[in-house]
Amino acid sequence: MGKYCFGIDIGGTTVKLGLFEGTDRLLEKWEIPTRTEDQGSHILPDIAASIEEKISEKQLKKEDLIGIGLDTPGPVEKNGFIHRAVNLNWEEFNLEETLTALTGLKVKAGNDATVAALGELYAGGMEGYQDVVLVTLGTGIGGGIVTGGQLLYGSKGGGAEIGHMHINDDETECCGCGNKGCFEQYGSATGLVRLAKKKLSESKADSALRKTEVTAKAVFDAVKEQDPLAMEIAEEYGRYLGKGLAMIAAVVDPQAFIIGGGVSKAGDILLSYIKKYYGQYAFHINRDVDFRLARLGNDAGIYGAARLLSGEN
Amino acid sequence: MGKYCFGIDIGGTTVKLGLFEGTDRLLEKWEIPTRTEDQGSHILPDIAASIEEKISEKQLKKEDLIGIGLDTPGPVEKNGFIHRAVNLNWEEFNLEETLTALTGLKVKAGNDATVAALGELYAGGMEGYQDVVLVTLGTGIGGGIVTGGQLLYGSKGGGAEIGHMHINDDETECCGCGNKGCFEQYGSATGLVRLAKKKLSESKADSALRKTEVTAKAVFDAVKEQDPLAMEIAEEYGRYLGKGLAMIAAVVDPQAFIIGGGVSKAGDILLSYIKKYYGQYAFHINRDVDFRLARLGNDAGIYGAARLLSGEN
Repeated sequence: MGKYCFGIDIGGTTVKLGLFEGTDRLLEKWEIPTRTEDQGSHILPDIAASIEEKISEKQLKKEDLIGIGLDTPGPVEKNGFIHRAVNLNWEEFNLEETLTALTGLKVKAGNDATVAALGELYAGGMEGYQDVVLVTLGTGIGGGIVTGGQLLYGSKGGGAEIGHMHINDDETECCGCGNKGCFEQYGSATGLVRLAKKKLSESKADSALRKTEVTAKAVFDAVKEQDPLAMEIAEEYGRYLGKGLAMIAAVVDPQAFIIGGGVSKAGDILLSYIKKYYGQYAFHINRDVDFRLARLGNDAGIYGAARLLSGEN
Repeated sequence: MGKYCFGIDIGGTTVKLGLFEGTDRLLEKWEIPTRTEDQGSHILPDIAASIEEKISEKQLKKEDLIGIGLDTPGPVEKNGFIHRAVNLNWEEFNLEETLTALTGLKVKAGNDATVAALGELYAGGMEGYQDVVLVTLGTGIGGGIVTGGQLLYGSKGGGAEIGHMHINDDETECCGCGNKGCFEQYGSATGLVRLAKKKLSESKADSALRKTEVTAKAVFDAVKEQDPLAMEIAEEYGRYLGKGLAMIAAVVDPQAFIIGGGVSKAGDILLSYIKKYYGQYAFHINRDVDFRLARLGNDAGIYGAARLLSGEN
């Protein structure tokens, strides 16, 4: 067993890399661009080269290295097989085997939101928690589930694809996935903006939102200023989120929901709207749950990726 | 490590007991009544006495016994703590510790539907499956989830309380749990009968269902006879089930759904209605899933309970 590892978070534009002591103490982090051209064929060799460079710079011995933990967008099976990562132009292959062949190191891979959940659980001040759901509210909705201390991968790496849980029968517009009424059509930052624009066009009421670009941030900034129309929008947004999270709770019964992604920058006021409606939809045994804001921000991925090597997942 | 164990399934009217060789080969099964009077305080002593009797009858030595696997209605935490089992008049206590004190044997306990899922997985001809969801369609809807080969307990033993997942915003009647729009209001046998009665009162069409007591069995018997109104009812019922299972799949991504409970006696025709609508609501990565009928019937509980002692759950 070596003493250092790498935690790597592959995003659509940058790859974040971290060098860790053990699988939990971040020593140094850096980034390289994600080169998605040529079917994303440069991404893993670029990562391998960057790691080699760091190993050489730090004069690390290979026998002192535990390995590489890695996350990526898209469903990843427990054995490292990736089905497709649209943002990276990747088709099906085994991520772990391929990066091991390039580096000679042990590799453990997982889906980005799922791995971020592991990061928040073990490095985000949640000691003692074993059952958590991370929900990232960004362009879409990402999810990561830890149950009994273990990552929930699902049979095809599609565990916690909660953004595509059906929550509305009356939707007429299609989600990016082709279905109608998916959770992320309402609960994502995109969904919030859509909802806000709809409310603004339906109402004649004055609002700070009429004088600015409508973004998730603008909505919650206006809520903090007690803007009535923005507060109405936040109520409806909170209802969608509360309902969706209650549905998830009926399936996995978490101790805590950790809310991350761009929308979560609104802070505690976002949680207050979610909690209000969660209680209305949740089954009684699921009601007593903590709501937390994600703490690690962009570092959740590298922390969680390193943690993949702890031998417990 | 001993050679025999007991698998016990506590129901509201009878307790089913099985003596197993190892944790998988059923040697003998029998039943005793569930005495729910006096806050259910006789149930565990009755079980302990029945086990003692069997041990004595078979001249088993205590050192040859692996222990007792046990399931019960209501949420059970991974440590054996039960929150409440309404049907048994039980309040909060630790089931495992209590039965160990009575018998001197190791005890491992779980929720009934969850344990039945384990039974179907390991004794119901599903070798090689690691990720399954058992859905029992009876008076209510029960659920049991196995993910990565492990039982999903949830933080308060409320994992897979899928009957109380919210799936309909327009419901005006309350579910038994107090909420409105729970999955079991539509997908259970009770829900099917309610739906059938509604259709029968709204329509003037002739139907075999007008000449008989309306039960889940009567509806699917009529479907098999191509009764048009019954087929319309089955379509709507299939839509509710397909939608609900697609929601669950977005959270845990199973390889297979196993359908049990009274309604499942309708057989493959039930699965055909579920599959038709499941495909419409499921996220693409969750679409390729098997639908199976539960095979073990009333024995799923004792098989699963024995399997709790295998050391893997």
